[in-house]
Amino acid sequence: MLNTLQEIVEKNKDIGIVETDYFTFAFPPDELILESGERLGPVTLAYETYGRLNFRKSNAILVLHALSGDAHAAGFHKGDEKPGWWNDMIGPGKAFDTEKYFVICSNVIGGCKGSTGPSSLNPKTNRPYGSGFPVITIKDMVNAQRRLIDHLGIEKLLCVVGGSMGGMQALQWAVSFPERVRSAIPIATTMKHSPQQIAFNEVGRQAVTADPDWNGGNYYGGAPPAKGLAVARMVGHITYMSDISMTEKFGRRLRNGINSSKFGVNFEVEGYLHYHGDNFVRRFDANSYLYITRALDYFDLANGKNICEVFKNVKARFLIIAFKSDWLYPSYQSRDLVKACKLAGIEATYCEINSTYGHDAFLLEVEEETHLIKHFLKKVFNGYAVAEEYEV
Amino acid sequence: MLNTLQEIVEKNKDIGIVETDYFTFAFPPDELILESGERLGPVTLAYETYGRLNFRKSNAILVLHALSGDAHAAGFHKGDEKPGWWNDMIGPGKAFDTEKYFVICSNVIGGCKGSTGPSSLNPKTNRPYGSGFPVITIKDMVNAQRRLIDHLGIEKLLCVVGGSMGGMQALQWAVSFPERVRSAIPIATTMKHSPQQIAFNEVGRQAVTADPDWNGGNYYGGAPPAKGLAVARMVGHITYMSDISMTEKFGRRLRNGINSSKFGVNFEVEGYLHYHGDNFVRRFDANSYLYITRALDYFDLANGKNICEVFKNVKARFLIIAFKSDWLYPSYQSRDLVKACKLAGIEATYCEINSTYGHDAFLLEVEEETHLIKHFLKKVFNGYAVAEEYEV
Repeated sequence: MLNTLQEIVEKNKDIGIVETDYFTFAFPPDELILESGERLGPVTLAYETYGRLNFRKSNAILVLHALSGDAHAAGFHKGDEKPGWWNDMIGPGKAFDTEKYFVICSNVIGGCKGSTGPSSLNPKTNRPYGSGFPVITIKDMVNAQRRLIDHLGIEKLLCVVGGSMGGMQALQWAVSFPERVRSAIPIATTMKHSPQQIAFNEVGRQAVTADPDWNGGNYYGGAPPAKGLAVARMVGHITYMSDISMTEKFGRRLRNGINSSKFGVNFEVEGYLHYHGDNFVRRFDANSYLYITRALDYFDLANGKNICEVFKNVKARFLIIAFKSDWLYPSYQSRDLVKACKLAGIEATYCEINSTYGHDAFLLEVEEETHLIKHFLKKVFNGYAVAEEYEV
Repeated sequence: MLNTLQEIVEKNKDIGIVETDYFTFAFPPDELILESGERLGPVTLAYETYGRLNFRKSNAILVLHALSGDAHAAGFHKGDEKPGWWNDMIGPGKAFDTEKYFVICSNVIGGCKGSTGPSSLNPKTNRPYGSGFPVITIKDMVNAQRRLIDHLGIEKLLCVVGGSMGGMQALQWAVSFPERVRSAIPIATTMKHSPQQIAFNEVGRQAVTADPDWNGGNYYGGAPPAKGLAVARMVGHITYMSDISMTEKFGRRLRNGINSSKFGVNFEVEGYLHYHGDNFVRRFDANSYLYITRALDYFDLANGKNICEVFKNVKARFLIIAFKSDWLYPSYQSRDLVKACKLAGIEATYCEINSTYGHDAFLLEVEEETHLIKHFLKKVFNGYAVAEEYEV
């Protein structure tokens, strides 16, 4: 344990400067056929890779991001002081050790960080799609990623991993492409969105569409629905934290005295929400927020079928991680997943981490996650290497 | 147990037709001095009473309403099919038996159901106060109610009772006027608002003030900030239910097929939220929502003092009720209150009801509440009667 920790500390070098790459595919008439039946093309995926693909192409790990994430999972963009969103987990000696593994992360379709989404130009109109963008699902996101993995010449992924929406994509990968996934690490996620999860997303969408600047989704070139999107993000932030983490972080501390501002910021927790709400508006597209939250709400891995039937071809072994204080994706949803795995004969390890950080824990509980994931990947990778030898 | 149930069923007659009364006081220059130091006057309180005050005036119970409640707690208004908000609890043979007790309920100041609030005429300008209405607190609400109780000629209240914000008022009554309260029943409430509770309210306020129709609070005579207030109410409704009650009520049932409406109602739970959001707009004033949620957030019974010090003069005995699945006012907040009572030598009984209804349970768990409250009131009333005899 101490050795591993020391090892992490010693090896805690970052990847350094990274760049985002772009891959464009599915040109008409070979568009990506979406779950809705609509066709989308051409499709661009923004992606980044860290580490080197080995000769056997057996060390590739696909990292899948959450609602507001992007392809920039690790390292630094030139001139930027802020590293990628999972930099604590990806790099030399880290959980996803870039000295051993080749790590890929791509921005989802529907997003606004370089992949095709509602703010992209619609080739048919030469204007941004806006609300003319087709409805997308988690399955559609994964189908698009599959093209990228083909393009990179990778037949089998060593692992698919992600938290929250990233975990849903990981599950969908294991189910949609069972022959191409050796292992999956769904973190703080669910097999299907619950009505409470749908409800929180719907409130966010209502806040966006209630903003007159949303203008039916056609606001590009004008003012975006900043106030509505900020409210949506504030709701989100409450659900990402826990009652206890908010109490520890803010308590009832006032930013100003009572009465200083009737309907402005009085309590520190309000200032925190305002800051993150406003900040989000600068870095995220409101329409992407609408489309991606819809994709989350539609997510239902079994979709009326028996889950054993759905899982029957899955070859991956699972490491399932949940967090005690996560009430947005409560641990019972992960335990339901474990149960489904066991019933379907999928090898699954489950760990509920005793964190107070709420849903944010998947980004913050680095040490605990590192121990679990390092060990799991080592086992999978070694098993993989051996199996490959036998195949030779 | 069975007897009591049967008794309830048999006696389940309603009070019948009731009317709202109005009491106006604190005329200038004798205005109500608010906690902020500002003066408010004249002040009108809308109130209703059920049952008859006995000769000794020893059977009066003050029922205190929650955020969106009003003075109409029981019985029917003429021509209205919907009874008062706690009709299941107040009436002949019910928990608050109107054959035994005299029940009073008044709309809080800051509200919009007949009591003075931001939509009332400001006598200085002869226009609605709007955002010129002073900041009010739970203590201010209680101070105003005290004038009504004086007006009704009641020296001692047998009981003060309420759920949620009503519970805060009950606590404040016991602390502010210890000689005038025999017992208190705080239900699903807290001694102070937590940062998570503040955060949810702040999101609601931001949704309202982001609506251009809010217009700085001066929208009377024009269109109210309907969309913003609806979003605020939707957030509220999620917090009033529980994950499990939402799953039981809605599951993932679709109202229409996927794709039928990109950003409209797809899931039943969305339809529910929309319905209640829109409905709220018709019956509630947005500025009242802002002022009352602020009062909730400012609520901190101890306010930096030692709670034993705050409770030291309290004469009331307490019945404290919480609900297992209430995550908006989690039961640990009620247990903190029980602990504070015990430390201060206040006689307190605590019951956590095993309900799945979430915070709404205080309106819905009628049977359980009835058993607890009937028994408690009987004990207090009998003790009271005996004590009165001795005093004679």
